[in-house]
Amino acid sequence: MPAPTTDVDLALAAELAQQLRVDSIRSSTSAGSGHPTSSMSAADLLAVLVGRQLRYDWDDPGNAANDHLIFSKGHASPLLYSVYKAVGVVSDEELMTGYRRFGSRLEGHPTPVLPWVDVATGSLGQGLPDAVGVALAGKYLDELPYRVWTLCGDSEMAEGSIWEALDKASYYKLSNLIAIVDINRLGQRGPTELGWDLETYAARAAAFGARVFAIDGHDLADIDQALAAAGDLSGHQPSVILARTRKGRGFSEVEDREDWHGKPLPEHMAERAVVELGGERNLLVRGPRPTGTAARPAAAASGAAVKPPAYERGQKVATRKAYGDALAALGVRRDVVAMDGEVSNSTFADQFAKAYPERYFEMFIAEQQLIAAAVGVGVRGYRPFASTFAAFFTRAYDFIRMAAISRANICLAGSHAGVEIGADGPSQMALEDLAMLRAVHGSTVLYPSDATSAAALVLAMADLEGISYMRTTRGAYPVLYDSGDAFPVGGSKVVRRSDADQVTLIGAGVTLHECLAAAGTLAGEGIDARVIDLYSVKPADAATLAAAAAATGGRLVVAEDHHPEGGLGSAVLDALTGAGRIDLAVAHLAVREMPGSGTTAELLAASGIDAAHIADAARRLLEDD
Amino acid sequence: MPAPTTDVDLALAAELAQQLRVDSIRSSTSAGSGHPTSSMSAADLLAVLVGRQLRYDWDDPGNAANDHLIFSKGHASPLLYSVYKAVGVVSDEELMTGYRRFGSRLEGHPTPVLPWVDVATGSLGQGLPDAVGVALAGKYLDELPYRVWTLCGDSEMAEGSIWEALDKASYYKLSNLIAIVDINRLGQRGPTELGWDLETYAARAAAFGARVFAIDGHDLADIDQALAAAGDLSGHQPSVILARTRKGRGFSEVEDREDWHGKPLPEHMAERAVVELGGERNLLVRGPRPTGTAARPAAAASGAAVKPPAYERGQKVATRKAYGDALAALGVRRDVVAMDGEVSNSTFADQFAKAYPERYFEMFIAEQQLIAAAVGVGVRGYRPFASTFAAFFTRAYDFIRMAAISRANICLAGSHAGVEIGADGPSQMALEDLAMLRAVHGSTVLYPSDATSAAALVLAMADLEGISYMRTTRGAYPVLYDSGDAFPVGGSKVVRRSDADQVTLIGAGVTLHECLAAAGTLAGEGIDARVIDLYSVKPADAATLAAAAAATGGRLVVAEDHHPEGGLGSAVLDALTGAGRIDLAVAHLAVREMPGSGTTAELLAASGIDAAHIADAARRLLEDD
Repeated sequence: MPAPTTDVDLALAAELAQQLRVDSIRSSTSAGSGHPTSSMSAADLLAVLVGRQLRYDWDDPGNAANDHLIFSKGHASPLLYSVYKAVGVVSDEELMTGYRRFGSRLEGHPTPVLPWVDVATGSLGQGLPDAVGVALAGKYLDELPYRVWTLCGDSEMAEGSIWEALDKASYYKLSNLIAIVDINRLGQRGPTELGWDLETYAARAAAFGARVFAIDGHDLADIDQALAAAGDLSGHQPSVILARTRKGRGFSEVEDREDWHGKPLPEHMAERAVVELGGERNLLVRGPRPTGTAARPAAAASGAAVKPPAYERGQKVATRKAYGDALAALGVRRDVVAMDGEVSNSTFADQFAKAYPERYFEMFIAEQQLIAAAVGVGVRGYRPFASTFAAFFTRAYDFIRMAAISRANICLAGSHAGVEIGADGPSQMALEDLAMLRAVHGSTVLYPSDATSAAALVLAMADLEGISYMRTTRGAYPVLYDSGDAFPVGGSKVVRRSDADQVTLIGAGVTLHECLAAAGTLAGEGIDARVIDLYSVKPADAATLAAAAAATGGRLVVAEDHHPEGGLGSAVLDALTGAGRIDLAVAHLAVREMPGSGTTAELLAASGIDAAHIADAARRLLEDD
Repeated sequence: MPAPTTDVDLALAAELAQQLRVDSIRSSTSAGSGHPTSSMSAADLLAVLVGRQLRYDWDDPGNAANDHLIFSKGHASPLLYSVYKAVGVVSDEELMTGYRRFGSRLEGHPTPVLPWVDVATGSLGQGLPDAVGVALAGKYLDELPYRVWTLCGDSEMAEGSIWEALDKASYYKLSNLIAIVDINRLGQRGPTELGWDLETYAARAAAFGARVFAIDGHDLADIDQALAAAGDLSGHQPSVILARTRKGRGFSEVEDREDWHGKPLPEHMAERAVVELGGERNLLVRGPRPTGTAARPAAAASGAAVKPPAYERGQKVATRKAYGDALAALGVRRDVVAMDGEVSNSTFADQFAKAYPERYFEMFIAEQQLIAAAVGVGVRGYRPFASTFAAFFTRAYDFIRMAAISRANICLAGSHAGVEIGADGPSQMALEDLAMLRAVHGSTVLYPSDATSAAALVLAMADLEGISYMRTTRGAYPVLYDSGDAFPVGGSKVVRRSDADQVTLIGAGVTLHECLAAAGTLAGEGIDARVIDLYSVKPADAATLAAAAAATGGRLVVAEDHHPEGGLGSAVLDALTGAGRIDLAVAHLAVREMPGSGTTAELLAASGIDAAHIADAARRLLEDD
C-alpha cells in the first residue's frame, strides 16, 4: 500500500467526498443494486469525519481506544465501503466485484463480518440505540475517551427507538455520542414527514437533551466545525448534528429528485455521473489516530470463580429469584453487566444492581433500547444480561433479530411468563416468547422448572455464543434438583422413569410440576409414566426424547404454558422428526383460548395444562392405542 | 337504577374523585391484587373528565358519536372500573367480587370484553398509539366530532411508541386527540427518569407538535379548564395535558411513597384509607351526552361487489403485486382502509393509495404506530390493511400480540420475505415472521405462491376475524392457478399427484415453485412425488396433509424460506400429529445458516431449499426406508 495522506485539509476532503460519491455509484451500478443517492447526500459528512475527526487505527480495529463509526442508515453501505477503500482496508477490486455479491463480506447492509463494523444495521432506527450501548460502555465501563459517531437517516427519525436512544443518551450524559442526521428530505416513496424543517428536528433533539448543531451538510467548513465541537467530551450531553443535504448530491440528473431511492444508476447514467463528479479517484487517506492507550477493556479481566447459589430440595423458590441470585453471583466476573426495563424488583435483577451498581444500567420502560444497550456494551466485549417481563421482549423482537445478525452475545431473561402469572391478565402473559426466541438464528432457549437448574443455566448463559434466553416463572415451586447436578445446554432431565413406562410426559417450567403430579396420579391407577424436564427448549435433547418415545410406544404428552405454535411442542416434534422415521401418538396441551384473570390454578386448569388434563391426555393416548 | 346526577359541578366532582379512590382501594384489596396508588393519582383527572367533559352515552357504548376513553396506563384498571360503577354500568358487587377474578370481565388490565373498552392495554405505550388510530378514523373517515381522551402514565413516556404517536397525531392534525399524562413521578421500582420535571415533558410534547397544558392534577378547576380547552376541536394540533400528581394521593400512609407500586393495601390499611378519604360513597353521575348524530359510520355502508384481479396461467407476477391489485379492488368497499410504513411502492399498497387517497394513511417508518393505527381504525368498524416489509413487522410484535387481546380484526401484509429477496442481505429478510404470526392467538397466516391465489386470499382476509397475515414475495413467478379456483382459508392445493406417489413435497410461496421443479426432476428418475401448496399456513389443511402422508409412506419433504422453527415445518407437524397416531419420515429444509447477499438462486441453493436440495432430500427419504 502506498503511504496514505494523513493531513487531510478541507480541499482534500472535498476531493475525498467526490471519490466517495463516485465509488458509491460505481459499486452499486456494478452490483445492479444498492442505494447510491442515499450515499451521495452524506459523502461530504463522511469525508470530513473520516479525514479529520474520527480517531481510528485502521490497521487495528480491535484497538480499544478507537472511536466507533456506526451507520444507522445501513442502506448507505456503498458510502461506508467506499470509505473503507479510501482508508485502504478494502481494495477497489473488492468493492467493484464484491459489493452485494454472494459470499462477499460487503453485504447489502453492513454486518460485523467486516472487522470495522460494530453492529448490523439495515432495520432503521437501530444503529443509534446500539450506539448508546457502545457509549455507555465507553463512559462507564471502559472509561476510555473514544467517541461513538453515528450516521442517521432522516426517515428513521420517525422510529420511536431513535427517541428512546436520545432520551437514554441524555439521561446517562453521554457526551461521547454524536448522531449525525443526513437530512436529505426524501424517503423511499417520497418526501419525509418533516422535509428540511431543521427547526422542528432541532426542537425535538434539544427537548430530548441533546446539544444541537444545525448545518449545511455540503459546506465542509461548517461540517468540520460542528464535528469538532460535537466531538468534545467535556460536556454532559449527547450531540445531534442536523445536516441539511440533497439526496444524490453531485449528479444533476438525480440530485434532490424523487423516485431515485434504492436504485443503482444504469451504466450510461453512471458514466455521466462520474464525469460530472470529476472522474474516478484513488485517494488514500488516514485521519487522526486514537488518543490514550490501546489498553484492553475491563472486559478482558474476567475469569474470577463464580460461586453459584445453592438451594435445598423441596424448598419453594421462584426461578426468577434464582435468576437474580445467579446473576449477582456472576458479578465477580468484571465483564458481566446487567440492565433491566424498570421491573428489576420483579425480575430480581435488582440483586445485581445493588451489588454492582457500576455495572448496572436502568433502561426504564424502553425495551428496544434495553436490547440495543445490551448489543452495544457487547460490542466492547462485555457480557450483558437484560431482563424484563417475558411478554415485553415482544416489544424488541426486531432488535433481537438484528442482534443475531450482529453476531451479538447477549443474555436475556424474561420473567412472569404464561397464564401462570394469574390475576394480571393476558397483556402481561408471555404466550409467544418461546416461539419468538426459538425462531432467532443461533439462539438458545431455556425454561427451567426449579431454582437449582435455573441458577446453573444462568451461569452457563454467561459463556454461550449468540442470543440466549431464559424464561423464568413468577411463582415459587419446589426445588427438584441437588446443587451438584449438571444441566448442560441441550440436555434434559428424566425426572421419573421405570422399565414399565407406557407414556412420556414432557414439560418445562411450571408444567413440569404438573407433569410430576400427573405421573403420581397415573401411578395410582397402575399407569407408569416417564417424565422429562425439557429445560433446554433449544437446542432440545433429541436423544433422550427419542429414547423415551421408543420406550413408551411413541406416546407423548407435551404440556406447555404457551400458545400451541412454535414453543415446547414444536421443539419436541422438531427434535423427534429430525432424527429419522418415527411413529408418534402426541397429545399437545397448550394455551389455546384467550385467557383472562384468575389464580394460577384456575388458569392452568382452564387452559387445559394442569395435572388433571395431563393425566387425562395420557389415559386417552393409552385407550386410543 | 336511581336517577344519576347529570349536573356535576366541581364540588361534586371532588366527592366523585374521593369515591373513585375509595373504590380503587376497595376493589384491589378485595382482589388481593392490583394498582390502587396508580389509580389514586389520576382520580381527580377522571372525576372531572367523566363528570364534566367526556361526551358519552353510557347506555349505548356503540353510539358512533360517543367520545372515546382509553386507559393507556392500563394498570389503573381499578380507577376505570370505579368510573364504570360511578356511571352506573357496573355494580358495586361486580366491582368487589369480580375484579381480577377468574371468569370476570373486570380483568387485571382492561380488555374489550367490556363494551366501554376500545382496546386492550397493559403493555405500556400502546393506548396512545391506538388512540391515534381512533382519532384518524374520527377526523378522516367518520368525520364525527368525537374526542379521544387517553390517560397515560409518566413511566410510559419512555416508550418510543409514545413519540411515534404524537408525531403522527401532529402530522395528521388530530385536534380530536387528547393525551392526559398522570405525572406521579414514581414508576414500579422507583422514581421515573424525569420525575416532576414538567418543563422537559412540555418541551418534548411541544416539539412533537402538541398543544401543551401543564397543570396541577389535583386542582379540579385547573383540570376542568385544561380539559375544556383541550377538548376544543377547532385547532389543528393534538393536546397533551401534563398533570402533576401524587401517587397514592389522599391516603397519607402511601401518598408519594416508593415501594407502593402494584400493591393492594392490606385490609387494615384499606380501612384506614377509606376513613381518611371520607368513607364509602355511592354517587351515581352522568356527564354530557354526545353531540351530533348517532349515525353509523361509513364503515357500515359496505357490501359493494369486489371484482378480483385476474391473471393468465404462466404469466410471471409477484404476489406482492397481486396484493396491491386485490387491495385496490377491495377499495369499492367503503370500510376498507389501507396504511403502510413508507414502502408502499414496494408492497404495492400504493395502488390503493392512488385510487382511494381518502382512505389511505401513510405511517412513515414507524411500524408500531402502523399496527396501532390499524387497531384504532378497526375500533370504529373499518377494515384496515397494513403493509410493510415482512421483516419489519417484528418491530411491532408487541402491538400485534396486544391487537389479538383487543379482539381486533386487522389484515397485515409483509412483502420481501426470506432469502428470496437476494442482494439486500439478512436485515431485510423476514425469516421469523411465520413463527411470530402463527404464535398469535387466533391468527390466520397465509403464504401464497402465485398471483391468483394471493389475490383470492387478500379478498378473503377482508372478512376474517382476528389478526390475519399474508407473506408476499419480492420476485415474479409463474401464475399457477385459474382465476376461478377457490382458495379457502385452511385449505391447500395438491398441485401434482398420481396414484404411484412415493413422497410428498410441501412448499409455500417461493419454495412451492422449487418443489414443482424438484418433482419434475424426480419424475425423470422414475420417482413420483406429490406436491402440496400449503398456502394456508395457519390453519393448515390437516386432512390433505394426512392423506398425502398416508399415500406416500409418511415420507414428507417440507421446504421453507424461513428459519426452521415455528414456520411451515411446524405447521405441517402440528397438523399431522394433531389428528392421532402417525408414522413419519420427514426431511425439513429451512434456512439454517445466517445468509448474506447474493442472487435469489444462489441464496436458495446455499440455504438448501432449492429444487436440487428438495429432490435430493426426497431421494434420501426413499433410500433410507
